This record gives sequence, C-alpha cells and structure tokens, in this order.
Amino acid sequence: DTVSTKGGIKVKSDDGSFVGEFGGRLMLDAAVFDNDTADNASGTEFRRLRLHSKGKIHGLGYKIEVDFADGDTVTKDAYLQMAVAGGKLTIGQFKQYFTMENLTSSRYTTFMERSYLTSFSPSYQVGVGYWGHYNALGFGISAFNAYQDEDADGGSGTTEGVGGSARVIFSPSLSEDVTLHVGGSALVTGGIEGRNRVRVRAAGHLSDASRPDIVNINTGERSESTIFALEFASIAGPLSVQAEYLGGTFETETVEQDVAAFYATTSYFLTGESRPFNAKTGKFGRVKPRKPHGAYEIAARYDYVENDSNDFEVESVTLGLNWYMNPQVRFMLNYIAADVAEGSDEPNAVTARMQFDF
Amino acid sequence: DTVSTKGGIKVKSDDGSFVGEFGGRLMLDAAVFDNDTADNASGTEFRRLRLHSKGKIHGLGYKIEVDFADGDTVTKDAYLQMAVAGGKLTIGQFKQYFTMENLTSSRYTTFMERSYLTSFSPSYQVGVGYWGHYNALGFGISAFNAYQDEDADGGSGTTEGVGGSARVIFSPSLSEDVTLHVGGSALVTGGIEGRNRVRVRAAGHLSDASRPDIVNINTGERSESTIFALEFASIAGPLSVQAEYLGGTFETETVEQDVAAFYATTSYFLTGESRPFNAKTGKFGRVKPRKPHGAYEIAARYDYVENDSNDFEVESVTLGLNWYMNPQVRFMLNYIAADVAEGSDEPNAVTARMQFDF
Amino acid sequence: DTVSTKGGIKVKSDDGSFVGEFGGRLMLDAAVFDNDTADNASGTEFRRLRLHSKGKIHGLGYKIEVDFADGDTVTKDAYLQMAVAGGKLTIGQFKQYFTMENLTSSRYTTFMERSYLTSFSPSYQVGVGYWGHYNALGFGISAFNAYQDEDADGGSGTTEGVGGSARVIFSPSLSEDVTLHVGGSALVTGGIEGRNRVRVRAAGHLSDASRPDIVNINTGERSESTIFALEFASIAGPLSVQAEYLGGTFETETVEQDVAAFYATTSYFLTGESRPFNAKTGKFGRVKPRKPHGAYEIAARYDYVENDSNDFEVESVTLGLNWYMNPQVRFMLNYIAADVAEGSDEPNAVTARMQFDF
Repeated sequence: DTVSTKGGIKVKSDDGSFVGEFGGRLMLDAAVFDNDTADNASGTEFRRLRLHSKGKIHGLGYKIEVDFADGDTVTKDAYLQMAVAGGKLTIGQFKQYFTMENLTSSRYTTFMERSYLTSFSPSYQVGVGYWGHYNALGFGISAFNAYQDEDADGGSGTTEGVGGSARVIFSPSLSEDVTLHVGGSALVTGGIEGRNRVRVRAAGHLSDASRPDIVNINTGERSESTIFALEFASIAGPLSVQAEYLGGTFETETVEQDVAAFYATTSYFLTGESRPFNAKTGKFGRVKPRKPHGAYEIAARYDYVENDSNDFEVESVTLGLNWYMNPQVRFMLNYIAADVAEGSDEPNAVTARMQFDF
Repeated sequence: DTVSTKGGIKVKSDDGSFVGEFGGRLMLDAAVFDNDTADNASGTEFRRLRLHSKGKIHGLGYKIEVDFADGDTVTKDAYLQMAVAGGKLTIGQFKQYFTMENLTSSRYTTFMERSYLTSFSPSYQVGVGYWGHYNALGFGISAFNAYQDEDADGGSGTTEGVGGSARVIFSPSLSEDVTLHVGGSALVTGGIEGRNRVRVRAAGHLSDASRPDIVNINTGERSESTIFALEFASIAGPLSVQAEYLGGTFETETVEQDVAAFYATTSYFLTGESRPFNAKTGKFGRVKPRKPHGAYEIAARYDYVENDSNDFEVESVTLGLNWYMNPQVRFMLNYIAADVAEGSDEPNAVTARMQFDF
Repeated sequence: DTVSTKGGIKVKSDDGSFVGEFGGRLMLDAAVFDNDTADNASGTEFRRLRLHSKGKIHGLGYKIEVDFADGDTVTKDAYLQMAVAGGKLTIGQFKQYFTMENLTSSRYTTFMERSYLTSFSPSYQVGVGYWGHYNALGFGISAFNAYQDEDADGGSGTTEGVGGSARVIFSPSLSEDVTLHVGGSALVTGGIEGRNRVRVRAAGHLSDASRPDIVNINTGERSESTIFALEFASIAGPLSVQAEYLGGTFETETVEQDVAAFYATTSYFLTGESRPFNAKTGKFGRVKPRKPHGAYEIAARYDYVENDSNDFEVESVTLGLNWYMNPQVRFMLNYIAADVAEGSDEPNAVTARMQFDF
C-alpha cells in the first residue's frame, strides 16, 4: 500500500479497492463593522474548523466530516457511496441536490459567505440520493428526512419532516477557454414540525445583530415548502459570471409566505487564471495559481432576497479581493454594504479570512 | 515503517513496538413507529459516529475513541494497556468486565440495540482492570470510579462513587464447528451520589417516548448496587444461540429495589457463515461473508426486564434481518413489538441501520 | 513519500514541502481531598484529551488541535505559520508570547498543574505573532483579539477586546551541563467586555470548590489590564530550578485592582537525566529516560498569588514524584497543601496522573 501527503494523509491499497484519507479545513474570519441601527460586534471567529476521514471500503466510497468551529460539534458529510449505472448512489448525510452555489465547496466560493439565496437550501440532510451525468447533461435526485432549524446539524432523529430535491444541469464546453452552464432545481418539503425559519446574516457571518428573518412560521402547525431555482454560469478565461434565481412558497393550513432571491457575481483573475468548473457535477473547483507568488482575483456581487407576503427585503453589494497563496491557502478580503428592509438597517462591513485545507 | 489501509490508516514500525492507527465507525438509523399510548417520533439519527486513534507506544497499547453522534462529544475508550503475566492490564476509561453482550462491540451485535439487560452494565468507566485467560478459561476484574447517570460520558470528576466488577468465562471448542460458552459476572457499586437511574428504550433507540425507568432512586442519599449475571452462548455452524440472565439490588439507607433481566437470541446465516466468537475474551466478532454478494442472517430475540419491588416490567420480541455487504459494511432491519408495564404502552417499530467501520 | 510512527502517523513528501501528521495526548487524573471548609469532591477526570493534525502545506507550517476532555470541544492551536526573516510569523489561534511556564507544553511541566501565576496568561487567542531569535537571545511579539472568560475557547467572535503581548529571553549555555535562562514579558489588554475574571484552583484541577476569584470585575464597563512578568530558570545536570514573578493592574473607569504572583520550583532526577530546555523558544522539552525502567524525578514548588487591592491571597506548597516510563508515557503523583485567604480554607490533596502522547 502506498502513502502520500498534501498536508493530510492518504493511503491507497495496491489494488485501489481500499483508500484511507485524513484531512481538514480551517477558515478564520475577522470583521470590522460600520453599524447603522443594529449593533454588530467587530471581532474574530473560526468560521469552519473541520476534520474529515474519507476513502474506500471494499470499493465503496465513504466520508465522515465533523465541524468543531466555536466549540460546537456538527456533523457535515457522513455517508456511504456506491457506483450505480454510471452514476453515484449516496446513503447517509450529504448536501441535497439543490442549486449551484450551495453545492460548491466553501473552499471554492468567490466570497467569504454564500449569497442569501443559499439560505433556502436544505444543505446537509440524512437521505438517499443519486447523481448521474451523460455528456454535457447532469442530474440528481434525493429524498431526505427534513429538518426545520437552519442551525441544525441533521440526524437528530426527532423530526418527521420529509423532503425531496432534484437538479438538472447542462454544461457544454463552448471552446477550450469558454464554459457555459445552465441548470434548474426543485425542492419540496412537508410535515415540518416546530418553527420553520429562514434567516440571513445581512453583512457577513459575524453580523449577528443584522440577522433578519425572511421566513418565520411558528403557528404550531406542520408546514411545507415548494421552491424552484435557476442557475447560470459562464467562464471565459480569467473572467467568470455566475447567477441564480429562486422563488418559492412556505405554507401551513393557515399561513402562506412567498419568497424570492437572486444574486449575480462576476470575478476576474488579475494573474490570468481561470475558475475551474466541474461540468459533471455542476460545481466550481480549486484554483491553482500559475505563478509562485500566487493568484489575485477581484470580484463583485449583487445579492437580494425578499418575502413578498411581508413586503420585506434584504439586499447587499459585496466587493472582494482574493489572494490564492497556493492551491491550498487563500486570504480573502470582502467589503459588504447591506440594506435591510429598505433603509431600516444599513450595516457596512470589512471582513477578512485566512483559509487552508489539506 | 509500513503503511496499510482498510479504509482507515495503519502504520507499523519495523520492529513492531510502535503502531499508529486511525479509524472510525458510522451507524445511521431510521425508525417508523406504530405507537400505542406514548408518542414516539419516527425519524432518523446517527446512532454512533466515532473516530478513534489507537496503536502502540514503546510497546504499550493505547486507544482513544470519541463519539460525535448528534452533536455531542462523548469519550468512549481512552486507555493505556500493558502485557502483564500473560494477560492485559488496562488503565484509563474502558468497558468494565461485566456480561457478554455489553462487551461485544456494537459493530458485531445481532440486533441494532442491545437487550434491556445491558442497561445495568457500567459500560465505559475510569478505572484499572486486568483480563487474563488460560486455555478455555478467561477472567477479568476491575475497579472503577462509578457514575450514576446512564447518559454520562465518564470522567467528569464530580463523583465519589466507586465500583468493582468481575467476569469469569469458560469457552471450550467442542468440535471444529461447535463452540460452547458459559460465564458469570458480578458488579458492586457504592457511594453513588445523586440520582441512581436505569431506564430502557422499549422499542429501539429512537423510542424516546417509550423510555420507562426501571430504577430511579432520587432520595438525596448515596446509593449502592449489587448485581450478578450469567451468560450462555453456543454456535453450531450457521446457527447460534445466546442468552443472559441478571439479578440485583439497588439500595440506600431507606430504599431497596430488586431487579431482574433476561434475554435469549437465536440467529441463523442463510448463506452459511458462522458467527465468530473469541474464546479468549468471550465476545462475538466480525462476520466475513463467504460470497461476493454478501451474507444474510435472520434472528429473533425475546427481551425482558423487571423491577420486582415496583411490580413493573418491560418485554419485547425482536425479529432481525442483516445483510453483511462485506466484512465492514452492514445493513440491518429490525421489527420490535414491545410491552411496557403489562399493556399500558405497546409500541411497535420497524427500524433500519446502515453501518460501516474502518 | 515516506511514513513513520511513534504511536501517531507522520507522512513526509520526498521534497519535504508537504508533511501530514496525526497525533494526540491523553491526561487522566485522580484526586483525593482532605478538605477544610470547602467541599471538594474526590474523583477522576480527563484533564486533557486532544487530537491534532499538523504538518506542512507547500512549505507553510500548520496545526489544528482540539481538546475533547469531559464532553467539551475546545479549539487549542489552529494556525498557519511562515518563515520570515529567520523567525516565525504565526496567524491564527496560538498561545500568546507571555511567561515561560505558560508556553511550556502541558506534556513537559514538572507538576500536574501550572502555577497560579499562569492564570493571568492569555493562553490561546486569535491573533498574529512573530517569534525570532539571535544566538542566545529570543523575542516574540503578538497582537490578538482578547477574550475575558477564563474558560473561553477563543474564536467566539463576540468580543471587541484587543491585546498585545511581548517576551524577551536570554538563554546562554554556560557549559555542556549548565543552562541559564532569564526573561521578561509584558501583556496589555483593552476594551474587554463583560466580566473580567481570573480565578485559581487552589489544590489542583479537581478542586472546584476551592476556586477563589483573584480578579472579578463585573461593573458593566469595559476593562483593561497591564501585566509585567519576569522569568528565571537554571539547569545543572539532574537539578533544575525555575521561578517567575508577575505584577499587574486590572481597571475600568471606576475600579482598579492590583495583583501579583510568584512561584519557585526545584526538580531533581534520581536517575540522572537532565530537563531539556529549548534556548531558542525558552521552553522546557521532552524528558528521555536513560534506562529501560524509566526516569524518576522529585520536585517541590512554592506557589503564591495575591490581589493587593482586596488584601486577598492564595498560596500552596506542592511536592511531586514523576515516573517517565518512556519518552511518551508519564505517571505523576502530587501532594498539595493550599491556603486560601490566610486560613479561611486550607485544602490538602493527593493527585495522580497517567499521561501519554503520540
């Protein structure tokens, strides 16, 4: 059996049917706020501190990943995976197939935080899913035990909520340098017990005081939701654009709330790199700097979410500068100007991140 | 130094006096209840999600294992082990020597949950123990700092309770295919502070609502207990039977409660495998399927516990079907029909598990 | 890439620019109290149960260490480290450069617990620091996001406190057998929100009931502190002495509290070993027994802390016996006679530890 390291540990059996891999990721953030009405505290936090074990057992893939940031223990991926009919069948806890930015690893997102739209994603849930692809076409479908708490770690065994998600993507390579990607997702949940709540941090993950509810159904009834989303990305050399739109409804027998969200991002590599995109899974990947001093990327995003039933909205503009010191180490600087409820709270923030994974 | 993998990572020094091993186990459960009077919630949970490090340091064995299921952090094994007089001296936190099913790894039990009887086991406690064996005879003795909370993680440093346990086994090999095993255990604890409580989940680990107390002494006095147990197992090719009986007393200066428990299990491998049994330690071991499509096992259990002083009892019948996909991956299906307090709550459950270890 | 083990796992790439290492440490304690007025409970606890991953990523050092003792999850080291101008620049969470015993690893301290003086150390904090050395001279400086809670795990992102620390050391080697070390540290914090509290466990870590406040400012104002410390150590063959003195002030706009602390330790190896000392970093290191049966060390400490403003003091005498079974396994026995507030609580304790690391 052979061993290798990129900072972690990887062992592979000679016939390839067993693999053992140990690794992790660290993201350490700092934020300074120019507050408006809400009193966000400047400071630092571990945004992610994860260790994982993954590999192969008798040819079956597995992964276990636990996040220890800020003194909590939160299970992320924890699944077994089998090759079935050219695709992958996954059983356990994993990110459900829904929207593009959600499925792109936090190690590879352009900004420190994902857009408001991703707050509607079920993220890690216990279920069964299948992802397949055929030429430029990819598709996934999953059924899961649905949790209603946006901070939940999954797997708590006390909910009878269920959900299903599906995603279809089309990612043709138009030329050697140009990639196009379009896709659509659907999410249905039902039987959700307790509070059904979706909220966003308006000005980065440390903006705990500027964290309004978009949806907050707490009538004691069981609730359900139906959400549709569209995604678009295009990469032409050092330039890329990505955008997603989402619309949906949360309801109980007595309440109905309609929501929508949208973001558009553009990014440009000053040092000439191109954002890698995996056409088979519809996710952005790891940037590899061309030069020893690393890669520099500038980016801008417009981010929007609304609850149409409440006439409530949050929007922001984010500017970003990323330095990819090497393929595994990245420093990020974000400026965020946010607007909660049309001027009732307008926090600005400068946030920074040190990130490495292995 | 050489490295190998079975999904985890193992490194061994050339002279064998150092070993470093990293691995884990995942058990993901689902349950659907047909409730009677108690309202058990159907759903899913990580039953176990453990990572461990073990090996040898200058020839001394060690193990550290932590369970992260459901957002908790619970230390399991955490000990140093030395070879003494042909046996093993263990210092640290480990499963005390008491009863057979308790000591058999959760990876190798026939049913998803151990029997009610095992709820009386001290399980992982901080102490010192010795296990030795001579031909078909094995014996263990241990002294420990005793905890009264059935959910405790051990090592919390706030109890002055103490305990001692002992186990003697006789496991002759009657022929190439036939193993017989008999044994007895004793457990004594004293000076237990706070509530002294033993409770069981009547219909599987997700049956939180059908979770009656068998013992619940909460008089403010210190309490003590004395428990004796007998164990029996026999394996004849694909067929095995296993049974244990336990009787004991919990008491304070003002209260006395007498308890008893019993279970009997039989299992049969449709695909011809035989349950491995380690005669030196008196524990069942890892099933290795003979065929590429895996091994299939069917099993049944009668399970009973009573508090004679309260005239309170819980009993259940469990039917099981196990598919050993390979030696490290197992899928389990259990049907449980339980009866709490002679008809006052009769929950039925269908439960399923996906399990792998590496 | 090559692999090795000392109980953990270490992989090194052929060019040395990548290293992946997995290891941990366990310290299991027991204490028996002869209580005076406070009611300390005798018992056991995991004092430290840590797993870590460290190594190199494209030539940059990193470390992630998490402590799981007693069911908590506490991040310790979590940083990225770069070689700059002959020294080391560290970004992330790490022990700030302040006093000698604080910076010496818990694996290498003479007694089970550090002295009262070390309670004033900021310990692990999120910040940026630089450590350099030139011949017998070493120096460090760091700036950090300061936490006020003595039990905090750092990185919680909710404080706006800031701090700076600096340390200068001079550690000439006087002869082959004789090392001298002197040094000084300074610590300044400001903008500390909430309670600013420093307390000590008078008679070891299990003496939860004999745990008086030295400083406890809780006026609702922001507080600040300024502390200076001096350190001294000398090693002459099997004999070593080490001592530190500290004095400082905690204040808000309305309150001022002056504190001081001092300890002196002497240790002698009955088996002739000498305590290793790293002159470049000013820390004690790993003892390596000369003989197969291990090394034996006896030690004594006088320990003192006072709040001059309150006229409150805690002092103790500790006697210690250490058996280094091998370089990675150590057993410790400490006798502590403590005096809180001049006779108002005089607990005595016998404490023991089993320790190993890999």
